[in-house]
Amino acid sequence: MTESPVVSETVLLEGHIVDTSRLPKILDVIVESGAEYEMVELEIGHTNDDPSRAVIRLSTSSAGAMEALLERLQIHGVNRLDDADITTAKSEADGVLPAGFYSTTNLRSEVRIAGVWVPVQDPEMDCAIVVTADGARTTPMHRVRRGDRVIVGRRGVRVHPLAPAAPGSAFAFMASDVSSEKPSALLVDKVAEQIRTAHRDGQKVLAVCGPAVVHTGGSGPLAQLVQAGWIDVLFAGNGFATHDIESNVLGTSLGVSVSGGGPTEGGHSNHLRVINEVRRHGSIAEAVDGGYVGGGVMYECVKKNVPFVLGGSIRDDGPLPDTMTDVVAAADAMRALVPDVGVALMLATTLHAIATGNVLPAGVATFCVDINPAVATKLADRGSHQAIGIVTDVGPFIKDLLDALAG
Amino acid sequence: MTESPVVSETVLLEGHIVDTSRLPKILDVIVESGAEYEMVELEIGHTNDDPSRAVIRLSTSSAGAMEALLERLQIHGVNRLDDADITTAKSEADGVLPAGFYSTTNLRSEVRIAGVWVPVQDPEMDCAIVVTADGARTTPMHRVRRGDRVIVGRRGVRVHPLAPAAPGSAFAFMASDVSSEKPSALLVDKVAEQIRTAHRDGQKVLAVCGPAVVHTGGSGPLAQLVQAGWIDVLFAGNGFATHDIESNVLGTSLGVSVSGGGPTEGGHSNHLRVINEVRRHGSIAEAVDGGYVGGGVMYECVKKNVPFVLGGSIRDDGPLPDTMTDVVAAADAMRALVPDVGVALMLATTLHAIATGNVLPAGVATFCVDINPAVATKLADRGSHQAIGIVTDVGPFIKDLLDALAG
Amino acid sequence: MTESPVVSETVLLEGHIVDTSRLPKILDVIVESGAEYEMVELEIGHTNDDPSRAVIRLSTSSAGAMEALLERLQIHGVNRLDDADITTAKSEADGVLPAGFYSTTNLRSEVRIAGVWVPVQDPEMDCAIVVTADGARTTPMHRVRRGDRVIVGRRGVRVHPLAPAAPGSAFAFMASDVSSEKPSALLVDKVAEQIRTAHRDGQKVLAVCGPAVVHTGGSGPLAQLVQAGWIDVLFAGNGFATHDIESNVLGTSLGVSVSGGGPTEGGHSNHLRVINEVRRHGSIAEAVDGGYVGGGVMYECVKKNVPFVLGGSIRDDGPLPDTMTDVVAAADAMRALVPDVGVALMLATTLHAIATGNVLPAGVATFCVDINPAVATKLADRGSHQAIGIVTDVGPFIKDLLDALAG
Amino acid sequence: MTESPVVSETVLLEGHIVDTSRLPKILDVIVESGAEYEMVELEIGHTNDDPSRAVIRLSTSSAGAMEALLERLQIHGVNRLDDADITTAKSEADGVLPAGFYSTTNLRSEVRIAGVWVPVQDPEMDCAIVVTADGARTTPMHRVRRGDRVIVGRRGVRVHPLAPAAPGSAFAFMASDVSSEKPSALLVDKVAEQIRTAHRDGQKVLAVCGPAVVHTGGSGPLAQLVQAGWIDVLFAGNGFATHDIESNVLGTSLGVSVSGGGPTEGGHSNHLRVINEVRRHGSIAEAVDGGYVGGGVMYECVKKNVPFVLGGSIRDDGPLPDTMTDVVAAADAMRALVPDVGVALMLATTLHAIATGNVLPAGVATFCVDINPAVATKLADRGSHQAIGIVTDVGPFIKDLLDALAG
Repeated sequence: MTESPVVSETVLLEGHIVDTSRLPKILDVIVESGAEYEMVELEIGHTNDDPSRAVIRLSTSSAGAMEALLERLQIHGVNRLDDADITTAKSEADGVLPAGFYSTTNLRSEVRIAGVWVPVQDPEMDCAIVVTADGARTTPMHRVRRGDRVIVGRRGVRVHPLAPAAPGSAFAFMASDVSSEKPSALLVDKVAEQIRTAHRDGQKVLAVCGPAVVHTGGSGPLAQLVQAGWIDVLFAGNGFATHDIESNVLGTSLGVSVSGGGPTEGGHSNHLRVINEVRRHGSIAEAVDGGYVGGGVMYECVKKNVPFVLGGSIRDDGPLPDTMTDVVAAADAMRALVPDVGVALMLATTLHAIATGNVLPAGVATFCVDINPAVATKLADRGSHQAIGIVTDVGPFIKDLLDALAG
Repeated sequence: MTESPVVSETVLLEGHIVDTSRLPKILDVIVESGAEYEMVELEIGHTNDDPSRAVIRLSTSSAGAMEALLERLQIHGVNRLDDADITTAKSEADGVLPAGFYSTTNLRSEVRIAGVWVPVQDPEMDCAIVVTADGARTTPMHRVRRGDRVIVGRRGVRVHPLAPAAPGSAFAFMASDVSSEKPSALLVDKVAEQIRTAHRDGQKVLAVCGPAVVHTGGSGPLAQLVQAGWIDVLFAGNGFATHDIESNVLGTSLGVSVSGGGPTEGGHSNHLRVINEVRRHGSIAEAVDGGYVGGGVMYECVKKNVPFVLGGSIRDDGPLPDTMTDVVAAADAMRALVPDVGVALMLATTLHAIATGNVLPAGVATFCVDINPAVATKLADRGSHQAIGIVTDVGPFIKDLLDALAG
Repeated sequence: MTESPVVSETVLLEGHIVDTSRLPKILDVIVESGAEYEMVELEIGHTNDDPSRAVIRLSTSSAGAMEALLERLQIHGVNRLDDADITTAKSEADGVLPAGFYSTTNLRSEVRIAGVWVPVQDPEMDCAIVVTADGARTTPMHRVRRGDRVIVGRRGVRVHPLAPAAPGSAFAFMASDVSSEKPSALLVDKVAEQIRTAHRDGQKVLAVCGPAVVHTGGSGPLAQLVQAGWIDVLFAGNGFATHDIESNVLGTSLGVSVSGGGPTEGGHSNHLRVINEVRRHGSIAEAVDGGYVGGGVMYECVKKNVPFVLGGSIRDDGPLPDTMTDVVAAADAMRALVPDVGVALMLATTLHAIATGNVLPAGVATFCVDINPAVATKLADRGSHQAIGIVTDVGPFIKDLLDALAG
Repeated sequence: MTESPVVSETVLLEGHIVDTSRLPKILDVIVESGAEYEMVELEIGHTNDDPSRAVIRLSTSSAGAMEALLERLQIHGVNRLDDADITTAKSEADGVLPAGFYSTTNLRSEVRIAGVWVPVQDPEMDCAIVVTADGARTTPMHRVRRGDRVIVGRRGVRVHPLAPAAPGSAFAFMASDVSSEKPSALLVDKVAEQIRTAHRDGQKVLAVCGPAVVHTGGSGPLAQLVQAGWIDVLFAGNGFATHDIESNVLGTSLGVSVSGGGPTEGGHSNHLRVINEVRRHGSIAEAVDGGYVGGGVMYECVKKNVPFVLGGSIRDDGPLPDTMTDVVAAADAMRALVPDVGVALMLATTLHAIATGNVLPAGVATFCVDINPAVATKLADRGSHQAIGIVTDVGPFIKDLLDALAG
């Protein structure tokens, strides 16, 4: 039931608003929220190369409802038509934002300061924007310091929606529904193409890895990908790193061999022994230097100076000395490595994929490879709309990706 | 291919070794590992009330293979027939165990010191045993201090397998395969019975909660369960606590109401605002005292003095001030609350269920309620063999459990 | 890569083309297919009550590509702007269509005969249209007879897209993504509302049932729904009917009771004995009349004269005498009962849900209740775009639905 | 609660009763059913090569409970110690069995006639045994004719449990839990080894195929496997055969190419056109001979005279003329091809896998390849205990299997 509207605003959206479904999604949001709209102006590109532009007048029953609606619309790149300067308020305590703080999207944004539109550094969702003499910066709640000037309300903030992938490009091809019923050979080629494009454009490739990469035989080819320079940054947890090292250190020295697929129940303490020895060395790098670790993904990362973050988790054994047990610090370490990432490969991990999705800007081409269709869906549900799900067995996938990139 | 055996050991198993599948599992492990066995002695109880006893002579091709085999067998309660005193070695550095350390199971255990069998405190899997003048204590790797005497090898350690659930008991009824094709009404009654029994026996009930408890409408009835005294300890993450508070604080004050099931995309920053306000108050308890939080699971925990641990995760927003961002400290906080827990309810959570399974002794009746059959399997795969999976929608399940316990 | 366009057509779409995402989907299809388009005319409704209209000029590189594109677009309600009369060809053999036959959508359609637009009877996807002196009728391939006049090509056929659900209606509320993280209590109320609306409008309610309805305790409340007149038509397989009867006939007479949840492995031949006895009686109705079956869903269907179709399957035991072993005949029997169905409840069945989806017109409100999220997705993927997935435990869901409708 | 026992029987089990978990499973069944037992005699093999033998005295509270218990135990190869001749009764009508008919397991069985143990032909679960002058034959209910002598009760029937797989054999390796976290490369090698062994032993290899084989790129390598003589029998449905032919006939002639992975929504009527043309030819073989079909799995089956059964389903379009629309007749056609099958590959199909499992004897090595872990579990739950689940992407799996067998 719609109450009589009393508050109105006029908003603008520009770009490929029709062939990327933006306009209808926006109208859906408006109608669902119980608001009313009037299409003041609509120019649709005559061909599929022309951009479009819509001006919409919104009416809601209260100022609160309007504010909530504008927040939801801004995720889709809708901005106020006539905007004013931002308003800021000071943080009263470290790690606490002023009431009414502006909450960011992961899209490229600008803020209006003294009539001038200034770009916001480090786009990331669910953060605040802190304004200093040097400009505006996306800042997670816990890093706001007492006295910081934080944007409140949404006046003076505008976002730029993603440009659609070029028709015919690898990403456009894949940006359809998650499905296990697609030939994975084709998908591998498209991911390889995207990786090559990213490197050609000077962008980095990030691999985010879960333990199933090791269990399904994917750590060997992944190590080769690192060795060959295809992976520039690696995020994982204590489990992945431990199993990767364990499979290399103990793989052939005990009866319980990875290559033979023998009983994995036995040697249930092997991972603890490996963690203990790395702890004795002091770090993975020292364990590599000391000759304890002689191969595998972590070994190649050390040898090739590929930076990695091992984020701790409450279920960890040990953990390895490199595992960052403070999760807030770990997320900050990930943030530091995110700039310039152009492609993110989420390999059989839910927790780390979501954590990575939280800190990636919207424009990063993201592929979620998992045997479980729910994982990719989950990522997209949490705001990483650009994530493409590939439902397949991750071990063979990485092997095929290696072949595609080596060929 | 089996090499010629050169190393032999004689082992003993006692108790309900046949009707709980222990004996055949043990023979499976022996055969799989490539070892040979001879049944030296076997007494099987004549009726289903009589215990049984088997003495088995094992032969392997090397001392290393024998050690690995004995480790795998000990998880099933197999001990050396003739045993000696334990051997210990000193830890050379904080958080580092001596090579060859004994790795624990989650079963009740004893160690032989100077010919006397001494019970081991705090059973927990994947830990070391530290021996002091006061006895022997299970100790996680990170809590071992330089100079601690740690058991090495497995001589002098014996474990006691779980007694089987009494035929006809709630737990015996349910200890069958995970299945979504069972009437959940029956299962609810059995869980309620188990909870009543635990409380009658002076044991605690632990609830481990994921965010889907809130999304599926389960937080209301769970809050009532806490209020009525059925829940004694609560483990969760930042997400569960945030959504629980958000649904209570903002549930009716905004157009986006939980009860109406309206758009959840909107108000995407509501959880940030809730976290920020709790941070401003300083803690959940202070936010309750300050009147900001007026209901819900966390509110009832504060009001009823039910201790809780919110374990941090790398994907957390905020986080809430109560969330322990150091995961090793969080697991230690969980360990401190585990003694006397008799029933553990894992409610729609994978991460926290596994983390909890890691620190629970084997005897705790554990129920994993999840709409995804893979979750309960996962827990059992990681050593929590006693976990029983209930594949159903968690919200209605908690509501029905409340009815069953209130009735 | 797009070749130079040589073939052009102008198409029209009308109705709620923006706020139901139709226009962008259509532009997606055009761009994906490698065609080019020019927006000749576009009128967008100024408010959310106004219909819209678009005229688009398409260009493709070949006549075949244009034909394929028009076929794909017609599913979305796109028709040629200027159309001619239909063309027909005679079937040369029973059950064989002329080459180039027009393949139907499940949308309401009309065909132009001698300049007049005539409605097509019995909308159903993936069929042919046979034209007689009496008009035009959707006809499955196997029912075409030698000499029938069948429409070829797509000239002279136009389809009417679905009207969007009214904002605020039960169906609009639910027509969002499949998710297990919604409170099922809310969803139950919405389904109940839709059922009441259908009955008020003189429409029928169809239940399509899988065996898990019985296993999860849903057959008792479903029988009550039938008894209370809420279900007008029932489709199922041999397994559902057998388990429903077995649970009623043998439920209390043997130690293996449904209510006690006892071992189901035992009594593994019970279903065969039940089938054999019903075969002895000759039919389910005769077994009811003879007193062999005294309760359950099938019993209530017989007593209330609710028509049912039990479609055979290659995995069936027995089968029951009522099970139609010829699957083509069974689908035809389903077709005969589909007219006037306004709501379809797919209850924990994949095979029969898809079979039913095949023969339902697009406008039927369809709910897929299943604990597995993949099932509803599957149905939508196969052309039943209107299907709404409800991911929950089916037994409790039916019980709650009974409560909602009885209240 | 156990009532006072009044009925007793003594049963025997022999063979590898301990290291294959048979004995404990049997004791589980006894205890679960509320019966009591006494171990009269137990000889356990001293080494893992020696067979064992147990004599158990059972007591139940009623004759009905004893009968139910014996039925459940017989699935595990438990027979009465002292047995008598069989009892038979005449069928009173075609397709109807006498009350109290003996229901078969899928294990090798014998029946005692005039003091002599006679083997039962065609082992298959859930059937009756018809006795004639020529011996005893497993007979599905629908094939019993009026006047046939059918065994009633379980006196005089004994079953032979499966011998365990030899330690170290491919099957023993794999006969562990379903898991997606195993390297599929290892599993492929083991399946290839099993296929080679079967062919060396003169046994047939059966492939049971679902449509996802085609969608995931597996039909090309599967066609090569047929062409190379590795597949001897093929079961599938209308969907698999249609998509296999469609991908070959239309794969390159339209813009919608399988190799390019282009839009599959378009060309939604392609499968109907293919079915229609095959109907015009009269059969798949005639369509091959007529040059309409020039490659693919069905083409190779025709060319290599590999017999196939396409079982109809209620969701079928068309169907193809080779599809058997009567499901009872289709299952009978499958039964006729089952003898001598030594390996069954279930490739991404649930319906046909279960249907095939129904008619296979217990000894056939069965592999269920599916991306969904639930499918293999489902097969084992329905009595095909020997089924081994391989959770991976089926297309790459078949390609790797081809490589492994070709190498």
